[in-house]
Amino acid sequence: MRATIIHGPGDIRVEDRDYPTVQQPTDAVVKVTAACVCGSDLWPYRGVRPTHEPRAIGHEFIGIVESIGEAVTGLAVGDLVIAPFVVSCGECPQCRNGVTVACDRLAGWGGKDDAGLPIDGAQGQAVRVPLADATLVKVPGVTEPDDALRASLLTLSDVMATGHHAALAAKVGPGRSVVVVGDGAVGLCGVLAARRLGAERIIAMSRHADRQSIAREFGATDIVEERGEDGVAKVRELLGGVLADSVLECVGTAESMEQALHSVRPGGALGFVGVPTGGGGVPLRYLFDTNISVGGGMAPARTYIPELLADVLDGSINPGRVFDVVMPLEDAAEAYRAMDERRAIKVLLTP
Amino acid sequence: MRATIIHGPGDIRVEDRDYPTVQQPTDAVVKVTAACVCGSDLWPYRGVRPTHEPRAIGHEFIGIVESIGEAVTGLAVGDLVIAPFVVSCGECPQCRNGVTVACDRLAGWGGKDDAGLPIDGAQGQAVRVPLADATLVKVPGVTEPDDALRASLLTLSDVMATGHHAALAAKVGPGRSVVVVGDGAVGLCGVLAARRLGAERIIAMSRHADRQSIAREFGATDIVEERGEDGVAKVRELLGGVLADSVLECVGTAESMEQALHSVRPGGALGFVGVPTGGGGVPLRYLFDTNISVGGGMAPARTYIPELLADVLDGSINPGRVFDVVMPLEDAAEAYRAMDERRAIKVLLTP
Repeated sequence: MRATIIHGPGDIRVEDRDYPTVQQPTDAVVKVTAACVCGSDLWPYRGVRPTHEPRAIGHEFIGIVESIGEAVTGLAVGDLVIAPFVVSCGECPQCRNGVTVACDRLAGWGGKDDAGLPIDGAQGQAVRVPLADATLVKVPGVTEPDDALRASLLTLSDVMATGHHAALAAKVGPGRSVVVVGDGAVGLCGVLAARRLGAERIIAMSRHADRQSIAREFGATDIVEERGEDGVAKVRELLGGVLADSVLECVGTAESMEQALHSVRPGGALGFVGVPTGGGGVPLRYLFDTNISVGGGMAPARTYIPELLADVLDGSINPGRVFDVVMPLEDAAEAYRAMDERRAIKVLLTP
Repeated sequence: MRATIIHGPGDIRVEDRDYPTVQQPTDAVVKVTAACVCGSDLWPYRGVRPTHEPRAIGHEFIGIVESIGEAVTGLAVGDLVIAPFVVSCGECPQCRNGVTVACDRLAGWGGKDDAGLPIDGAQGQAVRVPLADATLVKVPGVTEPDDALRASLLTLSDVMATGHHAALAAKVGPGRSVVVVGDGAVGLCGVLAARRLGAERIIAMSRHADRQSIAREFGATDIVEERGEDGVAKVRELLGGVLADSVLECVGTAESMEQALHSVRPGGALGFVGVPTGGGGVPLRYLFDTNISVGGGMAPARTYIPELLADVLDGSINPGRVFDVVMPLEDAAEAYRAMDERRAIKVLLTP
């Protein structure tokens, strides 16, 4: 089969790999029908994270179950399934608490399972899925989604689940005022998640006309282009002299965290899902003095998918709009370039 | 009148001061019937916080309204009232959000109001209370509480409200497992607050038999004496291999914050109310990797008092048990010594 392999910074190749097979009784093999490139895939692409040896890449996909191990009971050949961005067991204390990203048997696409067996990357034609019953979510009643539905289903793998996680961590709810820092696919999904959870006022911080347009479509009531202190002042002005009840940090830099933290009102909540590349910490004394709470992290997509899926299937949310470019898998290298150069918000790959 | 004045580290004196009078239409003058010494009063006492000039000290009291300004409508002479540990207006956006400790007109006992007029300290015979309608809470139907009730009412000024704040920030609720770091009056009230909110398992970290005893009386199901990694291991063992859903940090040192943070399970919540004397920050990457949320700060006691007061009055909670020593106001210097030397958990002063 064909699969996307990263060899080093800027070096993405689509190569031949063995077609996966069931290795464990709990495995499924899924034929990928849509995958995509994530903002976090750009770190190894940009050399921010080292690539020690060539490896399969990609962690978001949907597809059709092609074969299953004998212990798989909840899935059947022919099912359309959504894969969250990590493998989880569904049985350990963390999974039972809904924190599937801290699963005792956690494994990642393109990595190895807890038996040491390699797992395919998502940007390929097929993937061996360990712990398939617990990891995958079946899409009921649909096997051949149209392009729009396919795109929305694919966002549940990561970006829509992550935007939802940010909104929950920021305690978004009916009547709350919300600021979203970051206008990438996750930030835009954060806007959509905030609207879905009943936020009254949603301010998207964005300087790009195309992203502003999707933000408005997703429910942003206001756009702020200013950054730093000017951005905070603008938020305060829009909200009648106070800061936001809830702020979603969807970037991960020290600057964006600063922007987000200073946009929260006393007693408000900051939800952060941008991987904190800047390191560092949240100043305790500032949190103490302002009564601001901070939460977030990697989204337990597996936990959220059933709830979000229902809204995708009934058409009440259409997160697939974040994909502005569709390319064949063979063009994966160009997909990375387009995202790296910000010519694309998010690229969907069709194997 | 007699009032407690701090002159410098270790130098507490009870001195004569002018009896307060109504200065503003929104003032009340309250005759103090019970005050107390707070753990945070020990910072200037120990010289951790500088004392630039002699000043009235104390920020927790209950008492009887003696006179009111013409604009005061919700209180009458003779009412028994509880004073939260700060003055707040009840009308600004922060007060409307329930975050009275971030009030636009915030003022502290022993400090000055927003008109620049001095405010008496709580450890004295009487106090001028600015913004009396918004600041004070009337105790309905009681003017002469017995000793036990008096003590419990007094805790609503600060320590019980603060323990409740920690529990809310740590998302305590029915069925949750809880660890409380700190066995001072606030930590003990945190145990009581956790039980009141329905926690199933409450682990108090304490090495002092007297405090352990109150913790058990307040609802602690387990006591852990170990600290550091041993303490974390013990918590994990008690909870069947996982860490706590909710952890209350009620001390404020770098060590206690570390202890607290590492006692939280993935996806759990840390509520911190110990003033962070150690400075520093919460490591973002750790929060991201564990999905632990952090919140807390100064408790908006004014917001919580009505709810907690109802439970004190009907006898369902008895937080006044944290007072293990009662002394006359004249012995304030000895009260500070007893708390400083940890001979007392918390000293109640009777003017």
